[in-house]
Amino acid sequence: MTLKLFELVGTDDRRPFSPYCWRTRMALAHKGLDADSIPWRFTEKSTIAPHGSEKVPVLLHGDSAVVDSWVIANYLEDKFPDRPSLFGGEGGRAMARMLNAWGDIVVNGGAFPLVVADIPEHLGPVDAEYFRKSREARLGKPLEQVRQTRDAAVVGFRKSLEPMRLTLTTQRYLGGDAPNYADYIVFGGFQWARVISPFTLLEPGDPIYAWRETMLDAFDGLARKSPGYPV
Amino acid sequence: MTLKLFELVGTDDRRPFSPYCWRTRMALAHKGLDADSIPWRFTEKSTIAPHGSEKVPVLLHGDSAVVDSWVIANYLEDKFPDRPSLFGGEGGRAMARMLNAWGDIVVNGGAFPLVVADIPEHLGPVDAEYFRKSREARLGKPLEQVRQTRDAAVVGFRKSLEPMRLTLTTQRYLGGDAPNYADYIVFGGFQWARVISPFTLLEPGDPIYAWRETMLDAFDGLARKSPGYPV
Repeated sequence: MTLKLFELVGTDDRRPFSPYCWRTRMALAHKGLDADSIPWRFTEKSTIAPHGSEKVPVLLHGDSAVVDSWVIANYLEDKFPDRPSLFGGEGGRAMARMLNAWGDIVVNGGAFPLVVADIPEHLGPVDAEYFRKSREARLGKPLEQVRQTRDAAVVGFRKSLEPMRLTLTTQRYLGGDAPNYADYIVFGGFQWARVISPFTLLEPGDPIYAWRETMLDAFDGLARKSPGYPV
Repeated sequence: MTLKLFELVGTDDRRPFSPYCWRTRMALAHKGLDADSIPWRFTEKSTIAPHGSEKVPVLLHGDSAVVDSWVIANYLEDKFPDRPSLFGGEGGRAMARMLNAWGDIVVNGGAFPLVVADIPEHLGPVDAEYFRKSREARLGKPLEQVRQTRDAAVVGFRKSLEPMRLTLTTQRYLGGDAPNYADYIVFGGFQWARVISPFTLLEPGDPIYAWRETMLDAFDGLARKSPGYPV
């Protein structure tokens, strides 16, 4: 059965364009699975509505539509148990749930104000307007005003990553000796930022910087080959 | 072979008296193991120095001395593989490393300034002086000054727990359907606070509050029976 994946894209080929879509892309690669990409844009709600979602990623597998990156990861783990494990057992699956929440809040949520103002220039006019309006409502101020404070805000962002930094001083990956879904959770956020913003999130001496380099090289450079800004 | 555990204590029977000792206490209970407690105080460096440590917990098992709560958890998992698993497999062991760092920094480090001023009153004169001097040097101000800001500081502490809160809306424990070492990592910090400070860390409506209640009840109320302040 073919796998198909709705992925957020912009006007150019900088795809996918979402931290959650990148989690799924990396999870598919970990399982050695190919998926046909179905490009999707912010305002194309109607094309995924029949699959019960307002957001991507949405994975189609035969008659099944699987919605939400966390649910997709669990689906892949269960449907393809003979392929390399994403979680390394049930304990890992349970603990990855909190790392997923940490990635959502600390990494994606923390990076969001740092890169958000760079996003509209990668979107077509209709999507750019939708994006600006919805995000400025969420942030309570114009995107350009958010951008002005990012040189100061990035200091707090880097500090908030300390639990990950400390972990990487004792083991190579969040998943242990080799990357697994714990790493893809966090990497999704960094790769999303790299695709849509030239802003420097990490300093070169940071252990997380070195970890990100190895993740960019994983799966024959899957993430590095995707168009983006230099990190 | 008997297990013996050096545990931090104060002047009264509020023992153990450290987030890290509580991680080990809960891990031992999870494995169904008893350990003889060896009370230890901050200034008794000489009694654990022969075991290669300046801090507790230190676990003695036959001729082995095992130092550091994380190392002890791994030791127990490996030496007692037929008893209930602390990690739920190798994926869980790897991911618990980051939860351990999160617990150290966000929970223990975050709670520290909120409860620290209450600690000396539970210590004998020599330990109280050592504690005040070393902690005030670390904090850069008198303990009482730190206490004055805690009603404001606790708001940020509660916010920093959001990844855990979000996780507990989708599963009962950090370890999944039942608690494991992921839970003991975080619970150690809350139990330490409960033993040494009357300060309210969590609000009753918080999912983490409800989780803490079940942890207090675990193992026949092991933690709740230990003298402490009401939570």
